[in-house]
Amino acid sequence: MTLDHQKLSTSLRILCADMVEAAKSGHPGLPLGMADVATVLWMRHLKFNPADPVWCDRDRFVLSAGHGSVLLYGLLYLSGVSGVNLEQLKQFRQLHSGTAGHPEYGELPGIETTTGPLGQGLANAVGMAIAERKLAAQFGSDLVDHYTYCLVGDGCLMEGVSQESISLAGHLRLSKLICFWDNNSITIDGSTSLSTSENQIQRFQASGWNTIEIDGHEADAIDRAIIHAKQSDRPILIACKTIIGFGAPNKQGTPDMHGSPLGGDEMSALRDRLQWSHAPFEIPFDILQQWRLSGARSNDAYVEWQQRYGSSSLKHEFDRWHTGDMHTEIQSALHQLRTEMVQDSKPEATRKSSERCLTALVEAVPNLVGGSADLTPSNNTRTKTMSAIRSDSFEGQYIHYGIREHAMAAVMNGISVHTGLRPYGGTFLCFSDYARPSIRLSALMQQPVVYVMTHDSIGLGEDGPTHQPIEHLASLRAMPNVNVFRPCDAVETAECWELAIVSQTTPSILALCRQNLPSLRRDVRVNRSAYGAYVIRPSKGDRTLTLVATGSEVSLAMQAAEVLEQSSSHAVAVVSMPCWELFAAQDLEYQEEVLGDVPRFGIEAACSFGWERWVDHMFGIDTFGTSAPAADVYAHFGLTPTVISESILAFLD
Amino acid sequence: MTLDHQKLSTSLRILCADMVEAAKSGHPGLPLGMADVATVLWMRHLKFNPADPVWCDRDRFVLSAGHGSVLLYGLLYLSGVSGVNLEQLKQFRQLHSGTAGHPEYGELPGIETTTGPLGQGLANAVGMAIAERKLAAQFGSDLVDHYTYCLVGDGCLMEGVSQESISLAGHLRLSKLICFWDNNSITIDGSTSLSTSENQIQRFQASGWNTIEIDGHEADAIDRAIIHAKQSDRPILIACKTIIGFGAPNKQGTPDMHGSPLGGDEMSALRDRLQWSHAPFEIPFDILQQWRLSGARSNDAYVEWQQRYGSSSLKHEFDRWHTGDMHTEIQSALHQLRTEMVQDSKPEATRKSSERCLTALVEAVPNLVGGSADLTPSNNTRTKTMSAIRSDSFEGQYIHYGIREHAMAAVMNGISVHTGLRPYGGTFLCFSDYARPSIRLSALMQQPVVYVMTHDSIGLGEDGPTHQPIEHLASLRAMPNVNVFRPCDAVETAECWELAIVSQTTPSILALCRQNLPSLRRDVRVNRSAYGAYVIRPSKGDRTLTLVATGSEVSLAMQAAEVLEQSSSHAVAVVSMPCWELFAAQDLEYQEEVLGDVPRFGIEAACSFGWERWVDHMFGIDTFGTSAPAADVYAHFGLTPTVISESILAFLD
Repeated sequence: MTLDHQKLSTSLRILCADMVEAAKSGHPGLPLGMADVATVLWMRHLKFNPADPVWCDRDRFVLSAGHGSVLLYGLLYLSGVSGVNLEQLKQFRQLHSGTAGHPEYGELPGIETTTGPLGQGLANAVGMAIAERKLAAQFGSDLVDHYTYCLVGDGCLMEGVSQESISLAGHLRLSKLICFWDNNSITIDGSTSLSTSENQIQRFQASGWNTIEIDGHEADAIDRAIIHAKQSDRPILIACKTIIGFGAPNKQGTPDMHGSPLGGDEMSALRDRLQWSHAPFEIPFDILQQWRLSGARSNDAYVEWQQRYGSSSLKHEFDRWHTGDMHTEIQSALHQLRTEMVQDSKPEATRKSSERCLTALVEAVPNLVGGSADLTPSNNTRTKTMSAIRSDSFEGQYIHYGIREHAMAAVMNGISVHTGLRPYGGTFLCFSDYARPSIRLSALMQQPVVYVMTHDSIGLGEDGPTHQPIEHLASLRAMPNVNVFRPCDAVETAECWELAIVSQTTPSILALCRQNLPSLRRDVRVNRSAYGAYVIRPSKGDRTLTLVATGSEVSLAMQAAEVLEQSSSHAVAVVSMPCWELFAAQDLEYQEEVLGDVPRFGIEAACSFGWERWVDHMFGIDTFGTSAPAADVYAHFGLTPTVISESILAFLD
Repeated sequence: MTLDHQKLSTSLRILCADMVEAAKSGHPGLPLGMADVATVLWMRHLKFNPADPVWCDRDRFVLSAGHGSVLLYGLLYLSGVSGVNLEQLKQFRQLHSGTAGHPEYGELPGIETTTGPLGQGLANAVGMAIAERKLAAQFGSDLVDHYTYCLVGDGCLMEGVSQESISLAGHLRLSKLICFWDNNSITIDGSTSLSTSENQIQRFQASGWNTIEIDGHEADAIDRAIIHAKQSDRPILIACKTIIGFGAPNKQGTPDMHGSPLGGDEMSALRDRLQWSHAPFEIPFDILQQWRLSGARSNDAYVEWQQRYGSSSLKHEFDRWHTGDMHTEIQSALHQLRTEMVQDSKPEATRKSSERCLTALVEAVPNLVGGSADLTPSNNTRTKTMSAIRSDSFEGQYIHYGIREHAMAAVMNGISVHTGLRPYGGTFLCFSDYARPSIRLSALMQQPVVYVMTHDSIGLGEDGPTHQPIEHLASLRAMPNVNVFRPCDAVETAECWELAIVSQTTPSILALCRQNLPSLRRDVRVNRSAYGAYVIRPSKGDRTLTLVATGSEVSLAMQAAEVLEQSSSHAVAVVSMPCWELFAAQDLEYQEEVLGDVPRFGIEAACSFGWERWVDHMFGIDTFGTSAPAADVYAHFGLTPTVISESILAFLD
């Protein structure tokens, strides 16, 4: 076995280094350093089927240290994963190659999640491990029973999000989460001793993890560690002492190894040292043959799983959770709710309306998994029937994420790419900043994660500028592939929730308010929010100006319109724009019809940045907020019907 | 002493609860819980002079759990800090009161930093403790010798940024940093056991901290712990077991205590329990008298410090570091550099030009403290002469922050509000997302922190979409009080550095490129970047169209202009816009002169969001990037002189 391991790991090392050489760019240090660990994991433990890389019950492998992408590409090719070929490897880091600089979810089969921004993969892995436990609780270990492996570097462990997710994983006792730490004592700046003195073993133990320390270059030690780890009653860290760039005689163990090609001389020296005489990208048949057997190890497991699945009484429900179209149930539930909302017609905060939506959705969408970063009573994210997911019971539908916005978002990404569950999570809109790197990854990976972001403006009042979002709507609208919804009343909230929950490839931000808003919409037949914007109040007579507003400022615009029509000869239409992105996707004709060929004024209790796209003049807030009761803050910033209507008349004068 | 403590802490408790009652809003739980700790610290240890709250060598006290703001306001008032009065306390959370919902830096004397977004204060405190060590290394303990105290809650400790800063503090052995943990086992969602099982003692020890555990309601135990902590050879955590809302008979120890007023009945019960018969906001004279003596304890220390300072041979330099105007030296150094840059006139990446600026600035600005989140060789943030700050030597000028972007930014805020030093720090622009909550606080606190953000577009090439900023420029421009600079060549880089480093109240983002750019500017007399935008290439003949570009796209715009003028009858002016914010601050006349009353096209390798403000049509990127060599990525997105010039002609057709 040792001989085999040597040849196999060497073939992987050389292949990785060849890719980086060919691209003249990339990170050979981690792949050379962790090739032994990866080889043992792949050859002896990882449960997967190369012919069916999306098999639900496969073990997940997350390369959190995503800069080492060639390691993953090499493994996928060598083990014969369907859809991965040598040509792609030769095109590493080239346009449309699938082998991007960092692993990109969806670009190549077998990439479980997009990594590169450090720490994210670890948090994603925590999400996958939660999803596994939750689905196992629902469908039994007959259908769901896999490990989640994760490979982290020092960078991942220094990022704050790692602590948040380590802590959550320990709390939930995710015993099937196995994390390899590439402990090579080197970062880009030099020795890790330049910037850290942390005792990682003690740190993980403090969070309730088990730990093992091994030599990351000893195959049998690695094997024993994984066997041990699979039996752990808690998440487990396998600290692998490695040499970065292992095998490169002159550069190994130095920061030079991290992020640049070895170069011709050192490549030759590497080949010599590892006794590898084959040309670049050439893998001898017998070695490739052995690699290709790695998948065969799981053949029985795969066939048996298919049999259990095929004959399971839960098959229908299992399919519904994983690939089912719940569109009809969702529409029906929310349509009924909207009807009730119109009947009630009472003033209500949209965060409260959102809770009513969730109460309806929790029936229609059984695989919903909610949560909040410790703002449950403020975000209104937990319905009465939802119970909490706990370390001793994963049957609940709600995760108390703790004050960990960043991990919450990254964990939701992990739950989402795992498939089988629909995650949403809440915090204050202002603290979307804490979660931003992971929100970006929801968007980049096209995961329809739903972010419930309440307290969405100065309308939160007394908590003051640190809690009052100003630039957040603009900065989220600027992000590609995110739908930012800001509903103006209960009915619009239900419309926006519908759009968010039926989305397949776009994450949603629901910006919801703390304060009560009047019920504005009387019609519920059509989901008008789906058009992004629409005339919510037609002008009395031929339109002479348009007010465009979002969320809590729509009712303000309605009042301003009344004042204007009473105090001047203007005929004012009010446009509610719950979603910029969806409005931008409409054809020009519809856009012009809605906005009107008249002077246009916008009202949003947020920065005016970007509003030139739709309006001639903006009533917004281009400074930070202030602490006072909400009405006083609105008045302070001139956001009252009187001030606005007078300003508009002065402006048009 | 115990009797005194009882009365003093009770007066503080009642005063805090009174503020929340009067505002009908706020967080009484932490103040009631931590009043004993705060009283002992204030009465027996904290070195400060109420008459001179900005005395350089005062101990710093940071309320990281900023929602407990009334605790700080109460302490400032009771101890007689100049500029704080009872009327302000009665106006808690009202407009312009100074007593905002969360402590706002600059709103009231004695607020050392803005807190509320959790974890930030702890990281700020780490920055202050670093600043103290660094200034002590420079000026000796005669002039600089103070403690930094910090009060954190469970929320602070769950946030990832806390781990980043705890780890850095332990690594640098910040022995004068003393952190109180309000260990009350309650968060908003309920018991901390809902979301965490962490062993905090073990966690801090793993990061190289000392720790003590005490009953947070026993005055003498608190006193002994602080005495012990002041002798610690490492940063130290004092874990204070407390009861949230201590003294409120029916609500103490419950989540209800966290964030709402007690209400009339419970207020009465609190008064009864604590045997306090005085009216709201009434502090008996003898108790107030005792409180007022807390500052007197440091009288001698203050007078002696003033004497040492007055007679110090380092006084001049000390003043220069703290309040000196280095404008002349900076301008002179950078003007000379710009002259050299024009003479060189060689292609250069602006990140490299930035390094040349730093080499000049490190002489002119002796109190510069640089750093990078482990991207030193990529950010070009460390000049040849800079040495690293280490746990055994704080004489250096450079901090290896590790892969901790968030803590880096928050630590820089702490260094900046400490006064005496000018911090800058680097990472990739894409990872500004990781630091965003702290960048916002730089802006909100008006601290002129400089962020060196390299690899500022798809121009970084192969690393791909996870590393290629798209929405980051827009999202930072949307933030109030931030100057986002994106220079187009070496000379502009030096101009932007000058503007960033002379700034007093606005943080700066320097967005710098990885790839080489041609030298464009020949004139160096005037800092043209100070105008935000200017015509860098006049049209040949009467202008018929304008191209507006930033950074690396300015040279692209110049090439497109050449093509257009050669292939059509158009006369094309090119505008370089290194700083939107400064251009927006110019008068309309200048803006119109620069942009011209002609069709305007913008070019920026980033999302087009917001560009409607300046141009009619934008060449940008409204999707995520892609992994390939830089030139291929530019071509993929149509950002080439040919494609752009052809599109413009088609557009105008």
